[in-house]
This record gives sequence, structure tokens and C-alpha cells, in this order.
Amino acid sequence: MKEDEKLSPWKRKIHEIIYEADTPMGKLFDIILFVIIIFSVILIMLESVKAIDAEYHEILFVLEWIVTIFFTIEYIARIISIKKPSHYIFSFYGIIDFLSTIPLYISYIFAGSQVLLAVRAFRLLRVFRILKLARFLGEASQLKRALKASRAKITVFLFAVLIASVMMGTLMYLIEGDEAGFTSIPTSIYWTIVTLTTVGYGDIAPITPQGQAIATIIMLLGYGIIAVPTGMVTAEFSKQSREDTSNLKDSGSYVHINTQSCPTCSKEGHRDDATHCYNCGSILNE
Amino acid sequence: MKEDEKLSPWKRKIHEIIYEADTPMGKLFDIILFVIIIFSVILIMLESVKAIDAEYHEILFVLEWIVTIFFTIEYIARIISIKKPSHYIFSFYGIIDFLSTIPLYISYIFAGSQVLLAVRAFRLLRVFRILKLARFLGEASQLKRALKASRAKITVFLFAVLIASVMMGTLMYLIEGDEAGFTSIPTSIYWTIVTLTTVGYGDIAPITPQGQAIATIIMLLGYGIIAVPTGMVTAEFSKQSREDTSNLKDSGSYVHINTQSCPTCSKEGHRDDATHCYNCGSILNE
Amino acid sequence: MKEDEKLSPWKRKIHEIIYEADTPMGKLFDIILFVIIIFSVILIMLESVKAIDAEYHEILFVLEWIVTIFFTIEYIARIISIKKPSHYIFSFYGIIDFLSTIPLYISYIFAGSQVLLAVRAFRLLRVFRILKLARFLGEASQLKRALKASRAKITVFLFAVLIASVMMGTLMYLIEGDEAGFTSIPTSIYWTIVTLTTVGYGDIAPITPQGQAIATIIMLLGYGIIAVPTGMVTAEFSKQSREDTSNLKDSGSYVHINTQSCPTCSKEGHRDDATHCYNCGSILNE
Amino acid sequence: MKEDEKLSPWKRKIHEIIYEADTPMGKLFDIILFVIIIFSVILIMLESVKAIDAEYHEILFVLEWIVTIFFTIEYIARIISIKKPSHYIFSFYGIIDFLSTIPLYISYIFAGSQVLLAVRAFRLLRVFRILKLARFLGEASQLKRALKASRAKITVFLFAVLIASVMMGTLMYLIEGDEAGFTSIPTSIYWTIVTLTTVGYGDIAPITPQGQAIATIIMLLGYGIIAVPTGMVTAEFSKQSREDTSNLKDSGSYVHINTQSCPTCSKEGHRDDATHCYNCGSILNE
Repeated sequence: MKEDEKLSPWKRKIHEIIYEADTPMGKLFDIILFVIIIFSVILIMLESVKAIDAEYHEILFVLEWIVTIFFTIEYIARIISIKKPSHYIFSFYGIIDFLSTIPLYISYIFAGSQVLLAVRAFRLLRVFRILKLARFLGEASQLKRALKASRAKITVFLFAVLIASVMMGTLMYLIEGDEAGFTSIPTSIYWTIVTLTTVGYGDIAPITPQGQAIATIIMLLGYGIIAVPTGMVTAEFSKQSREDTSNLKDSGSYVHINTQSCPTCSKEGHRDDATHCYNCGSILNE
Repeated sequence: MKEDEKLSPWKRKIHEIIYEADTPMGKLFDIILFVIIIFSVILIMLESVKAIDAEYHEILFVLEWIVTIFFTIEYIARIISIKKPSHYIFSFYGIIDFLSTIPLYISYIFAGSQVLLAVRAFRLLRVFRILKLARFLGEASQLKRALKASRAKITVFLFAVLIASVMMGTLMYLIEGDEAGFTSIPTSIYWTIVTLTTVGYGDIAPITPQGQAIATIIMLLGYGIIAVPTGMVTAEFSKQSREDTSNLKDSGSYVHINTQSCPTCSKEGHRDDATHCYNCGSILNE
Repeated sequence: MKEDEKLSPWKRKIHEIIYEADTPMGKLFDIILFVIIIFSVILIMLESVKAIDAEYHEILFVLEWIVTIFFTIEYIARIISIKKPSHYIFSFYGIIDFLSTIPLYISYIFAGSQVLLAVRAFRLLRVFRILKLARFLGEASQLKRALKASRAKITVFLFAVLIASVMMGTLMYLIEGDEAGFTSIPTSIYWTIVTLTTVGYGDIAPITPQGQAIATIIMLLGYGIIAVPTGMVTAEFSKQSREDTSNLKDSGSYVHINTQSCPTCSKEGHRDDATHCYNCGSILNE
Repeated sequence: MKEDEKLSPWKRKIHEIIYEADTPMGKLFDIILFVIIIFSVILIMLESVKAIDAEYHEILFVLEWIVTIFFTIEYIARIISIKKPSHYIFSFYGIIDFLSTIPLYISYIFAGSQVLLAVRAFRLLRVFRILKLARFLGEASQLKRALKASRAKITVFLFAVLIASVMMGTLMYLIEGDEAGFTSIPTSIYWTIVTLTTVGYGDIAPITPQGQAIATIIMLLGYGIIAVPTGMVTAEFSKQSREDTSNLKDSGSYVHINTQSCPTCSKEGHRDDATHCYNCGSILNE
């Protein structure tokens, strides 16, 4: 990992535009990218509406190609403007970018590859980075912390819910039978979860008095159970809110992280005053 | 804005009646206004019930005109009795008052302008002001503070829910197809939100085992997700409640037993609403 | 309110049995009463099931008369064994007891008076007193306190929900129309509340894309709104839990209240060591 | 209970394998057992799907016998390798193990004994022990503590919900009648709980305006009521979390920035996962 192995000037320029958002060009690129991602998602939606697709198929097809070509160019630019392309290619965003780009190409080879277009929705996640939502990212990381701290509790809880669902589902299958829609144990388990989570579609519903009695128990159980994740996450939030209040002076850990990514290893989350990457130690662009 | 540019006496009188609620006339006006607003909303509801409209169309039409005329007079009075009419006209309430008044007039020009009658429901908001619910407004502002403090978190959260809905909706569209009601991606996204929020109409429901499996995941996700806004708002409320507590002196408002001692036998520990000593039965001082 | 205006000895005996639960006879009476109340409620349920009523109508009718006669005797005994019958007759329990007793009598005069039988479910509330659930009453009063403290917030909240429902309901009525089940504004408001509360029957569901879009907004709104009452009540509970912890020494206010009721004014909630009624000052039975 | 009454060496060996998980053999046994339990539950599910059962009946039947024989051997081994077999046989797990084993045997005697197969889902509970989820068990016990501490409140609450359901159910039965599906009071109570818990299947739904009005009240009630268990459990969690916090030293686990200083430039405030100094790029000590 030699320090002098620098990118050529025009590659550095592209890197600045694509990966950073501090220069006017970088900002402009981010806005254009954001608009095109939103546009590409709306495009997929419109294509799926039969009435619209029937009438505007030609236009939608052309627009789809334009988006695909833009994504292709962006993908190539991202690869050539980074020192270690493999870091980007196999990163979370790298894979999503790839899968968002190829469907149209491979649709000539495999029918039904349109399925991959759905992956584009993931590109929407870039919006957080694009909008420089430092404040929001702070909040998101607070959400993440709360979820992480409650992880063990949530695992126990989900496991308990699943075991209860298997039990109750089997019971309902034995009681209700085919007529009411409980055609198999997996279907019954599906119904139990629909009931426990208080979704209640009503496509399957008990009709015998015994089945209705057990359904009532499941519902009251679900009523109580819904309190558990809420209670856990709330207690976490409250704890953090208390800690944030008492740590006000020395915290600052959520503020000073900018949108720059390392030109060598593309790690993000550098301090504003950082001059070297905290991960690989190479010099960061100004 | 000269101070001496006063309103004429009778305009000041109207201003006092309409805008203030401290004089008997002002109070009376507020009560009448409140009753007429409620009445006008009920009127719109009744008109929409076909059976009632068919039989009482004439009466309802006349009552609608009476309400409209009252609102017209009120609107004009509000304008002329204020120094800067534009302040009122372009205020939130001013626009609502205007839109609540005109539908009947313009219904002769544009068919379907009855739509605007729905705006009247907004006039119900005046009730807060009319009833001078200072205490309630205090509570409302606490609600508002809690929501405001959680705004960033809520934005991140809603954005995450929307991205998840787009993803899951697209997936379900690909798996289920037309037969189960998943006729397009927007419809599938609608279904996903119906499921995530645990509303679950059941007008669209998965029928394939894979679809039901993914629906189960969405439901459990929704189950966990519902904990997040609750946790955020609760943590805010708790924080405010703690702050309120530490700002206040120890009020002892929950200790139902007061500090009075019986004037006859000097026993202590009487209930707050006690009028006689529980020990000797003699009358307690006020 | 003279002190010497005592009840005759046998009336005092009845009073002890019916109103108190400290003697063996009193306990026995309470248990019998409890069983008969449960039994009377089950009886009404069975009568409503057509298949059961058709086959066992005679038996059910006889049992209904037995319960009615027991309730009649109990009601009369309660009146004669108290010094101020009007206190009992016009109390909450007095009215419920009366309405639970008369239906069968007046069913010969007014058809459909069976409706009143439903009032019997209220008698179930006596179970709390009967089971001497001092600890549970403590908890119930904590619930009550939490609800009371949140009352103003809940009122603002419910009012806001109702105004939002009227607005949204009217909007949906205008968008969807008859075909989807939105036949009138009241029906639309009903649908809006079904959606906001995440119940979602699905008997009425939007079918136009615009309607579904607005429904989505209502659902997400409901999703956020559900956080508000939960947050309020939770914050209250947390506050009380904190206060209970810090007041542990001097509280004791929930423990020492027994099941005795004053023979004169039938007020309840006396301290265990009370010898006089805290309300009217008359001497309490040992 | 004499100490010298030892198990024979090979029984001790079996005991070690089955009941303990510290030896390699014990671990292997636990893993095999876990896999077979999961497998046996999946087997029951597959048998219940008619299409699968029709085609693979023979295979499933053979697999069912294999599982049953494994469970039989395990059950016998558990009994003989323990000093006091009665302790195991009449324990919670002992009974479940027995009921999970016998269905296939007694299916030759009693038809429909397959019902007992559902009991196997309970065997899934062993997973907690098998995976030695000490940490998770800790969390589970925290859940248990929270539920236990809230038990009295939950009882009062459930009782109140049930009484309200009986009341409201009876009322709806009287208002709606057969046409809307309210065929008897028990069915109406079932519907009330479906509504109160916000499940809302929609198989039964009010059709008269009065019925819809009362349904609206029930829903709003349910909306408020759902706050109560959540509030209780959350307050408990918060309390425990506060207690846990004050029992622990200040752990600083949420401060993502550690206390290390760079050995070269002595800058502080590095990320926890940093390997290089963000200021000078030199390598940080482990």
C-alpha cells in the first residue's frame, strides 16, 4: 500500500465529483444522481401498471434505456476513479449499483430478469448520503444503537413468537379444518401470525365456536405481546435520551463526520479535521 | 402603522365581539359560532346520506343557505372590524373561513364545487380557541414539542418505511401476480403499507406459499417497526415529564392523605375529602 | 344525622353479611353472589345462541327466573339493611343492581326489554370488591391515576383524531364514491376511523389509485398517531413508578383500606383502624 | 437419597452426553437433537399439506417412524441415565418429550391421535438450553421479571377488557342482529375482541349506522386501551434499565470514540475501529 501510488489527475477529478459532495460539481452530480434514481424507480412502477404500459410502452422502453446507460457510465466511472476498485465492487452499494444496471442487458438473454429492477429501490438509500443528512444519520445511528442494544431481547422475543405461532397454528388446523381456510399447518401458522400481529386480513377466519375462542386468546396474547418490543425499544430510547443529556459536554461524536470517502479504500465517516484515512492511513483530498 | 389610526367605535365593538371572548357579548358570539360550525358539519354529513337527502332535500338546502349567509356576514364582519384585513384574509383561519363560505355561491358556476364544503371541518379547529382551552393548548403544545423534537427521527423512520415498502411491494408483485390482487407495483406498495401498519383490509391477500412467507416477514417487521415511533414519542414525553418534575417543587399531588390533624383527638392521616375525623368522628376544619 | 338512629339487630346482621366480607357469613355470601353473577351472564349468552335456545328454552327460562328471584331478594335486602336506602338506590351499583333485576318482570309489559339483561355484565365489576383485591385495587387506582393525569392530553388527542377523521372521511367520500362502499360521509368517517386505528375490516376499501394513495397517508398517520396515547400513558406510568420508588417510606396509602362500607352513608374505603366514617362521622361496625 | 448410590459408569457416560453440553460428545448430541426436533416439526407441517402428502405419503411415513424411534431411544436413555427418573418424567420437559414420542404408537389404537404431534412444537423450547444462550436467557428472565412485576396490573387490565367485551358484545348483538353476522352474544363478544385488539378480520362487520357508531367507540377505546399494557411493560423495562444502570459503573459503551492517543502525534479521539491515526497516518497500537 504505497503512498506514492496516486490516481492520475483526471481520475482524481472524477473521484471528487462522484464520491464527494463538497465541491459545486460534486453537489450537482449528487442532485442529478438523486433525481435519476427517483425517476428510475417511478419508471419501474409505471411499467407495471398494465394500462400505462400498453399505451406508452415505447416511451417507457426508451427512458429505461436512458436510465440504464446513465447507470452504466456512473458504474464504470466509479470503478476507474478509485484506487482499489475491488473495495467498491464488493461493497454493499457496489453490488446494488451493479444489479440496478444490468437487468436491461441480460433481459435479451434471460426472460424475466426484470425482477432485478426491484433492486433499484435500494439505491434510494443513497439519498441519506446525498442529502448530507449528518443530523439524520445521527438519528439513524441512534435508532441502530437502540435496535442493537435490544438485539438479544428481540431474538428471544421473535423466537418465542415463532414457537407460539407453530403451536397455535397446529392447534387451529386441527380444530378448524379446510372449510374455514385452514388447509394446512403452514397456512394455519400464517394465519396465526396475521392474527398475533393484529393485521387480520380476514381471508382466513375461524368459524367454529372453539376456533373463535382460541382466536380470542391469540388476539389477547398478541395484544400483550405487542407491548414487549415497544417496551424494549422505548426503554432503550429513554436510556439514551438520559445519557445524551448527562453526556452533553464530551460527546460531539455525531457531528463532525463529513461525506468524504477515502480515495484508496473508500471508507467513509472521516472526522472533518482528518487529513489521513483512519482505516488505511493514506492522505485524504482536501 | 400609526397608533392613532384607530377603528371607529362600532367597528371596535364588532372587533370585541368577534375576536375577543372576555365580554358577555363576545362569549355569546363564540358559543353561537361554535354551535353553527358543528351544525354546518352535521348538515354536510346528512346531505351525503342519500336516503336523507332524497326526503329532506328542500329543508337541507334552506339550512345550507342560512349557514352560508351567517358565515358570509361573519366573514365580512371579521374583515371590516380589523385594522389590517390582509392579516386576517391570508391567515390560516382566514383562508379556511373563506373556503367554507363560498361553495354554495360558486355551485351555480362550477358543478361539483361542493367538494369545498369539506373544508368546513377545519373550522372545527376554532373550538380550541373558543373554549379558551388554555390548559388543553398547553397539552397540545407539549404534543407539538414532543413531535418536533422527534422530527428528524420520524423523517428517517418514514423514509426507511417507504423504501422498505417499495422493495417489498415490488417483490410481492413479482411473486403473487394478478390473481391475488397484486395487479401493479403501486398496488403492491399500497398492500405492503396496509400490512406494515397492521391495518390489513384483506381486499388483497397473498395466496401462494412464498407470498405468504414474505407477508409473514413483513408483518413481523411491522410488528417491530411499530415500536420505533412509539419509543421515540414516549422517550420524548418521559423526558419532558422529567423536566417538568424537576422544574416544579415537589407537589405531592398523588398523596391522597393530607397533613391535617384532627382538632379533637389530633390523629393524622385523613383522606383529602374527609369531613369528619376517622378516629373520633368530630368535624374537621376546612 | 343522629348517632342513636341505629339499625335493628337483624338488619345489622344482614348488613354485615351483604355489605362486608370480614365474617364467615359475609364471605360465603360474596362467593355465592359472585358465582350467581357469572352464572347469570353465561345464561344470557346461552339464550342468545339459537341452537341452544331452541332445544333448552324451558330450562333456560326457569334458570333465568331463579336468578331473577335471587337478585330481587338481594336487592330488597340491600335496601332494608342500610340506614339511608337512597344512598344505595341512586349509587352506581344500586342502579346496576336494579336494572339487572327488572328485565324479566317488565318483559311481560314491554317486548324487547331483554335488552336490559346486558346491564348484568356490569355486575361483574363487583368481583373486584368481592375478591378483596386490595392489591389489585391499588393497581387499578394506579391505572386510574395514570389515565386521569393524561386526561387533558387524551381529550386534545381524541379531538384531533375526530377532526382529522371528519376531514379525511369527507375527502375519501368525494374521491371514491359508492362503488367502493363509501356511500355517505358518515360511512366514510367510519372507514377512516377503522383505518386510523389499524383495525381495517376490509368491508369498505379504496379501489381507485388516488383513494389508495390517501388511504396510505391515513395509515401512516395512524401509525404515528398510535404512538401518542401510548407515549402519554407510558410516561405517566414511568413517572409514577419513579415517584413510588422515591416515596416508599411515607406512602402506605394503598394498603390499609378495607372492604367495610359505612352503615349510614355506605361510603367505602375506610382505613383499617378507622372507628368512624370519614364522610359522615357515624360509628363503623367492628 | 444416599450419596454413594452412584450410577454405573456407562449410565454416567449417557448422562454426560444427554444432560450436559460441556464435552464434545455432549455438544454433538445437542446439535443432532436440535436438528431432529426442527426436522420433526417440518415433517408434521409437510404432512398437513395435502398436495405433498398425496405424493410423498410413503416417504413421510417412513421419516416419521425414524423420528419417533430416535425420540423413543432418547426418552428411554434420559430415564435410565438419571438417578431419580420420576424427577424427569413428571417435569415439564419430561411430559413434552413423552407426548412428542407416543402419537405414532397409539395411532394404531386411537384414530386422530396425530393431534398430539402438535406438542412437538414445545420441544423447540429446548433450543434455548441447547444453544446455551446464557445471555439470551438473561434477557428472557428480564422479560419474565417485567411481566411478573406487571402481573397484577395485567390481571386487572384483562378483566376490565373482558367485562367491556361482554358489555359491548351484548350491545352489538342487540343492535346489529343476524344479517351482519352477529348471530349470538358469544359471536358478538368474539367480534368485540377482534375489534378492540385492532385485528379486524372483517368476516363480521356492522352495517347499521348505530352499529358503526358503537364500533367506532370500541375502536377508539381499543386505541386507548392498547396504550395500557405497553405503558406498563415499558415502565417496567425502564425501571429495570435504570436499576441496571445504577448497579453498573459508567461503562461508556456508547461513546464510539475511544481514549487512545496516537503514539506519533498524540492526537486523541480515534474511532474504536481505527487502525491508523486520522491526523498523521501512523499505525495505532492494538
